[in-house]
Amino acid sequence: MLVLITYDVSTMDKEGRRRLTKVAKKCVDHGQRVQNSVFECILDSTQLRKLKYELEELIDKDTDSLRFYNLGENYKTKVDHMGAKESYDMESPLIL
Amino acid sequence: MLVLITYDVSTMDKEGRRRLTKVAKKCVDHGQRVQNSVFECILDSTQLRKLKYELEELIDKDTDSLRFYNLGENYKTKVDHMGAKESYDMESPLIL
Repeated sequence: MLVLITYDVSTMDKEGRRRLTKVAKKCVDHGQRVQNSVFECILDSTQLRKLKYELEELIDKDTDSLRFYNLGENYKTKVDHMGAKESYDMESPLIL
Repeated sequence: MLVLITYDVSTMDKEGRRRLTKVAKKCVDHGQRVQNSVFECILDSTQLRKLKYELEELIDKDTDSLRFYNLGENYKTKVDHMGAKESYDMESPLIL
């Protein structure tokens, strides 16, 4: 299934940027970065539980937030894009 | 239906922050701001078309991007949250 993960973190400070980099690296193991702090991951329910556990260790729960949206299996018609950068290429090297 | 709207814009410059404020104001007319640049909107397909048209006028399509995810009608079990700020209060002033 496609799980959309959005990460709210202040990138005004160095520690926030560092956490974003770590979250991004973890998420792109399972999918792609479509915006600076938005990730589309292909996961089954076991992988999702594991990823949530790992991400929980990376964020500062007092200041940051993560949201998870389950788009299911038939997600291709549910997504639309406008403006710059249609999508990061999953096959290309990561830009972090 | 619930439509998730994510906005990728640089808030390092004043014009970017201004565009984010405008996009946020437009989106919260239809729902709530759940993260700094993530909005959950309740829309029918006509309202969605209109909102897309309006948002297209507000963003800089060369630098910013908007993504739209259709979560359908039965969305409550599809959303999970971790960390700070379960939801922005729709009645409170925007924090930018």
